[in-house]
Amino acid sequence: MKDDRMEKIISLCKRRGFLFQGSDIYGGLSGTWDFGPLGVQLKNTVKQEWWKMFVHERTDMYGVESAILMNSKVWGVSGHVKNFSDPLIDCKKCKRRFRADHVENNTCPECGAHDVTAARPFNMMFKTHAGPVEDAGSEVYLRPETAQGMFVNFKNIVDSAHPKLPFGIAQIGKAFRNEITPGNFIFRSREFEQMEIEYFIREKEWSALFEQWLSEMHRWISYIGLSKTHDREVAPDALAHYSKRTVDIDYEFPFGKEELYGIAYRTDFDLMNHREGSGVDISYIEEDGTKYIPHVIEPTFGVERTLLALLCDAYAEEQLEKDTRTVLRFKPHIAPVTVAVFPLVSNKEDIVKKAEEVAGLLRRDFRTAFDGIGNVGKRYRRQDEIGTPWCVTIDYDTLENSTVTVRDRDTMKQCRIAIGELSAYFS
Amino acid sequence: MKDDRMEKIISLCKRRGFLFQGSDIYGGLSGTWDFGPLGVQLKNTVKQEWWKMFVHERTDMYGVESAILMNSKVWGVSGHVKNFSDPLIDCKKCKRRFRADHVENNTCPECGAHDVTAARPFNMMFKTHAGPVEDAGSEVYLRPETAQGMFVNFKNIVDSAHPKLPFGIAQIGKAFRNEITPGNFIFRSREFEQMEIEYFIREKEWSALFEQWLSEMHRWISYIGLSKTHDREVAPDALAHYSKRTVDIDYEFPFGKEELYGIAYRTDFDLMNHREGSGVDISYIEEDGTKYIPHVIEPTFGVERTLLALLCDAYAEEQLEKDTRTVLRFKPHIAPVTVAVFPLVSNKEDIVKKAEEVAGLLRRDFRTAFDGIGNVGKRYRRQDEIGTPWCVTIDYDTLENSTVTVRDRDTMKQCRIAIGELSAYFS
Repeated sequence: MKDDRMEKIISLCKRRGFLFQGSDIYGGLSGTWDFGPLGVQLKNTVKQEWWKMFVHERTDMYGVESAILMNSKVWGVSGHVKNFSDPLIDCKKCKRRFRADHVENNTCPECGAHDVTAARPFNMMFKTHAGPVEDAGSEVYLRPETAQGMFVNFKNIVDSAHPKLPFGIAQIGKAFRNEITPGNFIFRSREFEQMEIEYFIREKEWSALFEQWLSEMHRWISYIGLSKTHDREVAPDALAHYSKRTVDIDYEFPFGKEELYGIAYRTDFDLMNHREGSGVDISYIEEDGTKYIPHVIEPTFGVERTLLALLCDAYAEEQLEKDTRTVLRFKPHIAPVTVAVFPLVSNKEDIVKKAEEVAGLLRRDFRTAFDGIGNVGKRYRRQDEIGTPWCVTIDYDTLENSTVTVRDRDTMKQCRIAIGELSAYFS
Repeated sequence: MKDDRMEKIISLCKRRGFLFQGSDIYGGLSGTWDFGPLGVQLKNTVKQEWWKMFVHERTDMYGVESAILMNSKVWGVSGHVKNFSDPLIDCKKCKRRFRADHVENNTCPECGAHDVTAARPFNMMFKTHAGPVEDAGSEVYLRPETAQGMFVNFKNIVDSAHPKLPFGIAQIGKAFRNEITPGNFIFRSREFEQMEIEYFIREKEWSALFEQWLSEMHRWISYIGLSKTHDREVAPDALAHYSKRTVDIDYEFPFGKEELYGIAYRTDFDLMNHREGSGVDISYIEEDGTKYIPHVIEPTFGVERTLLALLCDAYAEEQLEKDTRTVLRFKPHIAPVTVAVFPLVSNKEDIVKKAEEVAGLLRRDFRTAFDGIGNVGKRYRRQDEIGTPWCVTIDYDTLENSTVTVRDRDTMKQCRIAIGELSAYFS
């Protein structure tokens, strides 16, 4: 059942235009994915809702969007050049390469040979060259995380916005990791997007603010309608040396319980490093003149993992009287299409025209689709499968009394509503 | 005056948190820029408004978001591996490299030596390696344009969404070009974002649909409030061999009249190449069974160029009775902050509390800032400088009769409005 569900979700995503493998007609490019119309809509909604909750609606948050290409010194100072690696093993027989934890008993998982190398570190940053000279001095990396973009801009934010502690810097943006073995659909890919906050605090506040942020993360999780998440306290001996506390929020994916989000108290480790590494005094100065490097709490959210969790959470197959229906039970404010409008029949000009008129009206306020193909029952199934909460059918009575049939995705019940009341009904 | 204006805009952008140079505290990274809080807001607004006009409000447009890393075959087929280059010249004395058109009379623009090489092609695609083996087979490029992501997904869109011709595929996303000499602030950078449409048509429709799209582009230009644009018909002998018509839309930047947007009729060149290159039959099939490769019209919009044009267009210095004010005359739906709320004084708890309450109320519907620092005159100047259309001041009378002072950015006139009527006033 478990593997089956993942396959069905991947197939639905491709068939209905949520997600395609990257460079599809060229056989793909491992670890990359392209978003189709419904996928882009779902992704944009998630990003916009996140930005609304964590930036717009707060008075202590400053948004940034830093470049993917950064000065290489950043990654030296952050430790990524030295330490951001996975252990890599070569099979001496078939010449393939694997992550050490995928090789059991020194046996190649591909050809079965017992002839493999010892593990050695493989840096996961993508490297390129900027400028017309290709030498060591022009080496740059695609950022493997968005976080350093916030740390590097800490002083710019302080100087331009004059925020009072505690305050946060938020960013949504792409990051790249040259994973040895990408997998599990969009769970582990080489190109992905993060929604991340660096929340700068006074050291003494850390414990209380950590709890507050953890609960803010759960507010988000419940807002987008995810269940099946589990907080996992990272054991003290497994913490990075600079972190005093880290909690991973796992989700029960069909392929196992895996990390969805994370929150870490990173002390003053990052800003201290950047002060030393850049030689620029990036200290914060209190109104009374006290000068120090703030500490930081970092809540991180993966965009693709959010989407995958939403898809898995929403996916259901229901046994009906005559057949089975597949339905994505997205919350209405998350669903890529909020309302679908159908003309009851597609060969009556006045009904089609009225349906287009109603769709045009709804489109101003809602993500609206139009479907006039096949019988209405089939159209319901098609909308169920992409998670559309409501379908509106325009029929002969509509032309008489301006009412329409509204059908609910979850209850499958229908009711009659006046066109003028639709907006209020969906809001 | 001209150079002066550009310097002033760049300085304002840094001072107020629109834009910082990338990796600032590390001395920057040439051709990269980081967006600060106001810059991100302006950028997100432009992208969201564009998506709304060209995707949401249309029934013939399908959004995609394809990966930045694509299978290298794509760039072989598109011609980028072979042809996407600028002519490069080396100075034999100082060893620096320049774009040929920046070298006059065979003289190095840096050290003045007459000893320069002949021009040779320099490919502007950033190259990296995907996967654990660094060899020719693992070479991938950062996409230098978003367009190929739409062509490669043409078949996926047809198969999943079953659109009828003419229809378009739209995308907003980053692209990377290893410019030899990036410059003019965010006008020419190595990392930038595009908003682009590939509109698929029947060949015979091209001329009329080209005109329609050109006028749609002007509708956008006027919607965001840009003046000073000029259509420039690309001369037949300057057209790419596959293009039958191209119009560049120039903008009068302070550094000269330069390309802002462009629209090209690209015939069936791209899809034909991909059909041949991929070996996949990506033909479109009409209801009557006719099978062919559609032609395409491509309207392209640069995100950063839009922002730069908006900043230049909006920037003004006004001589007032006693002093000069700097103002950004953004249209209200574009301005990063729609309304700023001030408590008249910051040492009266009930006034500050009321002001925070009003700001909280407005924040639900508008991009709202709060400023309680310095005298009200100074706060007006600060908001003028970032283009905030309205400032709302809460004073002693507010506590009595629930009215506030609303000050208009452009007329600088003030009027008294009831709190309950503010939303309607700003909408």
